Amino acid sequence: MPLVNDTTAPRIALVGATGVVGTTLIQLIEERGFRYRAIDLVASARSAGREVSVEGRDHRVHDLDGFDFSRTDVAFFSAGGSVSTTWVPKAVAQGALVIDNTSAFRMDPATPLVVPQVNAHELEQRPASGIIANPNCSTIPLVRLLRAVEDRWGIRQAVVSTYQAASGAGYSGIDELREGVRTVLEDPDSPGVSKTFSPSLAFDVIPSIDRRLDDGFTFEEQKMLQESRKILGLPHLDITATCVRVPVVNSHSEAAWIECDAPVDRDELVRALAALDEVTVHDREELGAFPTPRTAGDPNRVHVGRIRVTRTNPRAFWLWAVADNVRIGAALNALQIAEALVERGVL
Amino acid sequence: MPLVNDTTAPRIALVGATGVVGTTLIQLIEERGFRYRAIDLVASARSAGREVSVEGRDHRVHDLDGFDFSRTDVAFFSAGGSVSTTWVPKAVAQGALVIDNTSAFRMDPATPLVVPQVNAHELEQRPASGIIANPNCSTIPLVRLLRAVEDRWGIRQAVVSTYQAASGAGYSGIDELREGVRTVLEDPDSPGVSKTFSPSLAFDVIPSIDRRLDDGFTFEEQKMLQESRKILGLPHLDITATCVRVPVVNSHSEAAWIECDAPVDRDELVRALAALDEVTVHDREELGAFPTPRTAGDPNRVHVGRIRVTRTNPRAFWLWAVADNVRIGAALNALQIAEALVERGVL
Repeated sequence: MPLVNDTTAPRIALVGATGVVGTTLIQLIEERGFRYRAIDLVASARSAGREVSVEGRDHRVHDLDGFDFSRTDVAFFSAGGSVSTTWVPKAVAQGALVIDNTSAFRMDPATPLVVPQVNAHELEQRPASGIIANPNCSTIPLVRLLRAVEDRWGIRQAVVSTYQAASGAGYSGIDELREGVRTVLEDPDSPGVSKTFSPSLAFDVIPSIDRRLDDGFTFEEQKMLQESRKILGLPHLDITATCVRVPVVNSHSEAAWIECDAPVDRDELVRALAALDEVTVHDREELGAFPTPRTAGDPNRVHVGRIRVTRTNPRAFWLWAVADNVRIGAALNALQIAEALVERGVL
Repeated sequence: MPLVNDTTAPRIALVGATGVVGTTLIQLIEERGFRYRAIDLVASARSAGREVSVEGRDHRVHDLDGFDFSRTDVAFFSAGGSVSTTWVPKAVAQGALVIDNTSAFRMDPATPLVVPQVNAHELEQRPASGIIANPNCSTIPLVRLLRAVEDRWGIRQAVVSTYQAASGAGYSGIDELREGVRTVLEDPDSPGVSKTFSPSLAFDVIPSIDRRLDDGFTFEEQKMLQESRKILGLPHLDITATCVRVPVVNSHSEAAWIECDAPVDRDELVRALAALDEVTVHDREELGAFPTPRTAGDPNRVHVGRIRVTRTNPRAFWLWAVADNVRIGAALNALQIAEALVERGVL
């Protein structure tokens, strides 16, 4: 009975409740039995007024414009960076603690950037800013693995290429991929559909996610470096990435090459990764197995495969990680932050 | 008039004439006006007897079983490794020079492994084995770029992740991707179609190409290391790769991170790559441009973008390369080997 008549359970608000992360957050609240005293679904004017079911009860979606956060204990924001930039400070001023899924406050020194499996210790008290930031979808699974590598072997540098799914751009990304693929199947010379993605993602890969920075890297690539450093508390960590969108509906993959300070024993590495919370190593029994976005299995776990030490450098190894970017990379991490806050009595 | 009555023009045979590489080789012979005195199309029993048009003339496809290479000057083999292993030695024994598209003889010391833009000097005379090997489709575009980097900055190490298209597995790969995508569009929970690829490539990425080796790398990944070393004449070159199949119909992409011995100036690097034969650099004018498999343009050129020096290491940079794997990575390279042999009077 997650909706409880218990004054210790928080009153929650979901901003962006009708988007792909918001919808998944509702599913996860149901699946995990997260206890709350009241729930408000909030969205932009476009979606306000819709009825959305949470645990069999219909809730009318409130318009964010004019919503009062003074009776909210914790607000989850998943409606994009510009919405958070405008509305998160108002929600905080009205007394809500905010768990923000966007990049708006991640690098703010007064705001902890948290992956509960890595740095839940930063949730011992209410943060100065009133905000806890949820990291980028590609960063979350990676830092959960890097923590174990750093602790045992020391990370000298990491080189990462991503294979990111359409759902990272929300329902419009998913719909556009499907529509584009349908169009190109009918006419192989069609440019496909291109509004959310440019060019169309249908049967194509796009080596550019989020805006381009002056040095030629994208903001998405910079996030992986800066956020990993902050979460792991390693200000000099050297991670470089190329972030690429691929025509997959959901779940991001990453090919990570990691050079350590010490030689790496493959069996020990496999054991160290398999021992992590909510991580499944797919090649523990045999080298032939590997996870893919559609076949990895449990969407609430990080899936790892292709673990292999390079022949030319015994301090360096590769791994292949697959994680549901909407769950692991956004909604589940946000909810696990809330669960950790409840556990610590902060909420 | 590529079909010429000129006893100096070679008599050619195309083995695997009805496959995706063979078909493209015929197109390229037409497009480039490659001069030949006679042409024989050869394939397995399954395709023998078909009529295939070359420059408006119909040719009946011969059955490889029983084909006599004694009247062939140069035979192009593109029918898979096991066909080459069996038939290339016979063709050579019957007097033909063989240009082999498979991995069967690439690492044979008596067989040059040639990318004409890199090591055409190895084509000055008929090789001892009677065979010239065409490298792997992912290796060819990469070594064409690495040559310039090595010469100017020295390569300390390269870390490469690939995004390889379905056409690398021939027409059956292309057909299976299209059919699988159609199936999954209709029923998102369908496993898709999986015969050539495992699991289905529809809306998925598969981090495993070719067979798995004992150390956990795939043969495809090993090829990139061993073949690059041989072509570039750098036996200690350190390249490590993760090779991944993506749901793209044609053209392979690669995200390559290259650490050099000396600091790299981006502008100089862009100029050096743009100066290469048949290479187009997409971000020469502005940082925002990049090539993708469907939008890169001229399929006879290697397309490069996302060139950027890392902030944490001024000796290291990333690039993103896109090349038509059937043309650049197979048929065009093979034909350019033949053109170079003709130019040098070896054919």
